[in-house]
Amino acid sequence: MATYLITGASRGIGLELTKQLLELPTSEVSKVFAVARNAETDAIKQLSQKYPDRLYPVSASVDNTASVQHAVEAVRAKLNGQSLDVLVNNAGISGETKGLIKDMELDQLTQILDVNVVGVQRVTAAFFPLLEQGTQKKIINVSSGLGSFAYAPHVVSMPSDAYNISKTALNMLTVRWAHQYAEAGFTIVSISPGWIKTDMGTAHADLSIEQGVAAVKKLILETGKEQNGKFLNIKVPKTDEMMFDYDGKEIPW
Amino acid sequence: MATYLITGASRGIGLELTKQLLELPTSEVSKVFAVARNAETDAIKQLSQKYPDRLYPVSASVDNTASVQHAVEAVRAKLNGQSLDVLVNNAGISGETKGLIKDMELDQLTQILDVNVVGVQRVTAAFFPLLEQGTQKKIINVSSGLGSFAYAPHVVSMPSDAYNISKTALNMLTVRWAHQYAEAGFTIVSISPGWIKTDMGTAHADLSIEQGVAAVKKLILETGKEQNGKFLNIKVPKTDEMMFDYDGKEIPW
Repeated sequence: MATYLITGASRGIGLELTKQLLELPTSEVSKVFAVARNAETDAIKQLSQKYPDRLYPVSASVDNTASVQHAVEAVRAKLNGQSLDVLVNNAGISGETKGLIKDMELDQLTQILDVNVVGVQRVTAAFFPLLEQGTQKKIINVSSGLGSFAYAPHVVSMPSDAYNISKTALNMLTVRWAHQYAEAGFTIVSISPGWIKTDMGTAHADLSIEQGVAAVKKLILETGKEQNGKFLNIKVPKTDEMMFDYDGKEIPW
Repeated sequence: MATYLITGASRGIGLELTKQLLELPTSEVSKVFAVARNAETDAIKQLSQKYPDRLYPVSASVDNTASVQHAVEAVRAKLNGQSLDVLVNNAGISGETKGLIKDMELDQLTQILDVNVVGVQRVTAAFFPLLEQGTQKKIINVSSGLGSFAYAPHVVSMPSDAYNISKTALNMLTVRWAHQYAEAGFTIVSISPGWIKTDMGTAHADLSIEQGVAAVKKLILETGKEQNGKFLNIKVPKTDEMMFDYDGKEIPW
């Protein structure tokens, strides 16, 4: 019986993950806090009606300290003495580069670092006292294979400079957290959710949202202390149509 | 006969590198542009008096677009049709973390990313047109072994979370630039200058400023196209007192 908090829960991977976690029995997933800039969307409302005692929408922006602090207080009140067990830092922005990297907009790079790196730091630090009381002490940072140096030669032509840089930085943030809180019993990992057909991933992506997120969910559930500080791939059987491999193994940094 | 531009040139590694490059014959190093927030310091003035026709102080902040643009125009005027051959992105800030990463100041993380990552992007993009005309087309990003995932388990206890994260991000920025401009003949690398006794490195560091920067200078001079996109270590013979190895080899990301 674990409680989850997912950021960026109003759409894409975050929304589907919220949905799939709630489909698990209450004995496995008791509560899900769905955090989003606007958590009052129709999709979240529908889920709330279906799971009134298990789903809690919380409106907060990961790039705004006051709103994250409000979210912590709202979550603490709803937990009512129960612990927070798993934090999924899923909120993030993409950002296509027009042309080559010399033409990257500086504001775009600044903003993407602010949301994808500083935002994760902000949320993790703010919820850390609740997670310290948790039974699982699990923090999942949703990164991307595009942040891997090993993969970099294979994705040169993808126009996503700022995004890749932000995910590389997020990975080092993961590692620093993981090493410093290993002894306290935490499991802190980066995961690559795969290339999923979301607004961000586009319709050309390898995996349907249901299939991709099912693999993400499985990875989150199965990740334990022995994976602390690692960068993990989802596991999905390979087909000829897929551009990438999802072998369920560690991704080289 | 090459022209150099060095950022963060008013002190530490940048100042010493400016000095050591100017000690080379004019046939090897014709001009050095010493860029710093305040390039009118006594140390730079003294060097200017010694090398009036080869050293050009330029005041600019790497975190300010207008000042960097002014610097480009000043450099272009002084070059007077000559090309800019080597850019050394040396400017950067450190930042000690008080306590563990959960207590890292968000403003500190934001600022260090702005200077050490966005600042390098700003400077590189701004000077790129001058570098494209260069005979060497060399861009050296001064990174740090603290930004390496391979080294991360060995530096867990160093209170430098924000700095490490910024240097990891800088390394991916290096790789993206390197891959995209390899065909245009560029050599773009990250280097680790070693742990040098500067204000930033403290008096406990492994290497004197003269010794460390001599190795940095050698590395810059010897780095060519075959090193494009790599992360390079300086080469200094090992002694028992040194904490780190400086083997002149590639550093794993």
